[in-house]
Amino acid sequence: MGIKTEAFNEYREKMNDRLLSAENNKIIKRIFNVDTNTYLEGELTVKTKEMLGLVASMVLRCDDCIKYHLIKCHENGVSEAELMEVIGIANLVGGTIVIPHTRRAIEFWDDLKS
Amino acid sequence: MGIKTEAFNEYREKMNDRLLSAENNKIIKRIFNVDTNTYLEGELTVKTKEMLGLVASMVLRCDDCIKYHLIKCHENGVSEAELMEVIGIANLVGGTIVIPHTRRAIEFWDDLKS
Amino acid sequence: MGIKTEAFNEYREKMNDRLLSAENNKIIKRIFNVDTNTYLEGELTVKTKEMLGLVASMVLRCDDCIKYHLIKCHENGVSEAELMEVIGIANLVGGTIVIPHTRRAIEFWDDLKS
Amino acid sequence: MGIKTEAFNEYREKMNDRLLSAENNKIIKRIFNVDTNTYLEGELTVKTKEMLGLVASMVLRCDDCIKYHLIKCHENGVSEAELMEVIGIANLVGGTIVIPHTRRAIEFWDDLKS
Amino acid sequence: MGIKTEAFNEYREKMNDRLLSAENNKIIKRIFNVDTNTYLEGELTVKTKEMLGLVASMVLRCDDCIKYHLIKCHENGVSEAELMEVIGIANLVGGTIVIPHTRRAIEFWDDLKS
Amino acid sequence: MGIKTEAFNEYREKMNDRLLSAENNKIIKRIFNVDTNTYLEGELTVKTKEMLGLVASMVLRCDDCIKYHLIKCHENGVSEAELMEVIGIANLVGGTIVIPHTRRAIEFWDDLKS
Repeated sequence: MGIKTEAFNEYREKMNDRLLSAENNKIIKRIFNVDTNTYLEGELTVKTKEMLGLVASMVLRCDDCIKYHLIKCHENGVSEAELMEVIGIANLVGGTIVIPHTRRAIEFWDDLKS
Repeated sequence: MGIKTEAFNEYREKMNDRLLSAENNKIIKRIFNVDTNTYLEGELTVKTKEMLGLVASMVLRCDDCIKYHLIKCHENGVSEAELMEVIGIANLVGGTIVIPHTRRAIEFWDDLKS
Repeated sequence: MGIKTEAFNEYREKMNDRLLSAENNKIIKRIFNVDTNTYLEGELTVKTKEMLGLVASMVLRCDDCIKYHLIKCHENGVSEAELMEVIGIANLVGGTIVIPHTRRAIEFWDDLKS
Repeated sequence: MGIKTEAFNEYREKMNDRLLSAENNKIIKRIFNVDTNTYLEGELTVKTKEMLGLVASMVLRCDDCIKYHLIKCHENGVSEAELMEVIGIANLVGGTIVIPHTRRAIEFWDDLKS
Repeated sequence: MGIKTEAFNEYREKMNDRLLSAENNKIIKRIFNVDTNTYLEGELTVKTKEMLGLVASMVLRCDDCIKYHLIKCHENGVSEAELMEVIGIANLVGGTIVIPHTRRAIEFWDDLKS
Repeated sequence: MGIKTEAFNEYREKMNDRLLSAENNKIIKRIFNVDTNTYLEGELTVKTKEMLGLVASMVLRCDDCIKYHLIKCHENGVSEAELMEVIGIANLVGGTIVIPHTRRAIEFWDDLKS
């Protein structure tokens, strides 16, 4: 795990804690809860679900969501050859506006594997 | 295959033919060509790729793209229980604005299986 | 309540029932549940929340979501003069691509009041 | 001008009139006014501006906006060969989710020229 | 007002000045002008309008727009409990891709109140 | 060419190389290839095509895509007065959420001309 991955995890955790300790945070708490449940093993494997989460994050162009699912894809055994096919679909469906996010994604992928 | 699926396929084919017979259609032709190649069996199965195409289409809220990938998912053996997990991820990541597209998706799913 | 409002409500209910009776529908059910809770009276009134839901639906250009929140806005006493200010913000923030949705919104507004 | 073009123009005009006669319509009126001014001859020709409006409408996937700018492109002498290059850029930048809108665009283009 | 808020205000002002001193800036000037008018007290209070602007900015995932409306919400007396309900609607309607923007929003909220 | 332009070009080139040397990069390679072909002189001039690419990037709010097309627009003789008309269309069609991207665009424009 490289420096960028650590920084990402740290900030993410700190601000999630802040959000979950806000008063009147009922809805956010429940959304976080559904979020956790959605990616659990089910009919589809966690690996497949994380690739689904990744491609959705890429076409919606959310860098932090991409980073999170890259970490999870890596943890669940997605290879670089498989990642490149997810990336291919994202760039085809979402268009060339996804390319800058792809550049940052592959940079983060290298960091998290380091 | 129901009436809606037939109508969808027919219109899609007719207008694709029209586009591919337009003068100066080089770029569109090449994009169509990359499109075909992207969903071929590779490191990932066609089934997985079609689910990736579906979730991308759902979060980007493109009804016709959803229909196309539903047909392909069905052809490649995606079950309703698996479909519901793809739908779950799409609605979680993309938010409740995906719900109306989900209603139309499940209606089309029922039609194409009929 | 006009013909369009009735047709909208009927289709929405029918397909929601279909979705909620699908096997493996846990995530969709929970999202629907959070959805209901989010718009309940809280620190903000239901009226304010429905205007927030409306403006979000307009800038994201989801016609069915717009229709739903128009019904709720009307039920909760939003006047046409107030509606026009929500519409103004949506068209300013979201740009002129919101105009076609605004045309359909005002048509539906007239229908639901009829 | 074909049947679809007429129907489009008629509905657009009717609902614009409705919007502009709503009470408290100040903001919508001003946005409509800026809209008109933006596409006037300036440093760039009306033809170029309408192609810019078209490509923006395509990547944002607004069918009615696409129809409007197709009419204006046609009026200002955009040829089919030129249109196909605008379409190429839209599908490249915006991705394959633009394809269904492209199918409807070329169908409308044929209608408006008929 | 914290360091981040100051930096945000300073950059925003500097670049707005640059834009408004560009030659041929007629359209941008008018859009800025409509922008100012849209959020003035009307049928709805400034507070309500700023919450509408905030939720629109959140679902469209524009960090700088979010920051601007957070400043205005704070100035107009939106409490943290109210803010959390706006945030709840934004994350529900816009989906979990809004979460990273929510983390940055709450961080900025803490900064501007400091 | 200023510091920001250099940094942008350097990072872009480095990460494009990384992507194009990934295993299983067939789809990305082909998309990059179509990308190059799309902006070549054709029925429309390169200058017009780059303005089309710019307005598409602006309404889709992709800062790196905007930077790339600003460089190309500058190379192909787009004047500031012309640029301001492209910017006007982007902000009108895409709404005020485009303004923060416009501020960064004009800052980059000044940098690349320096």
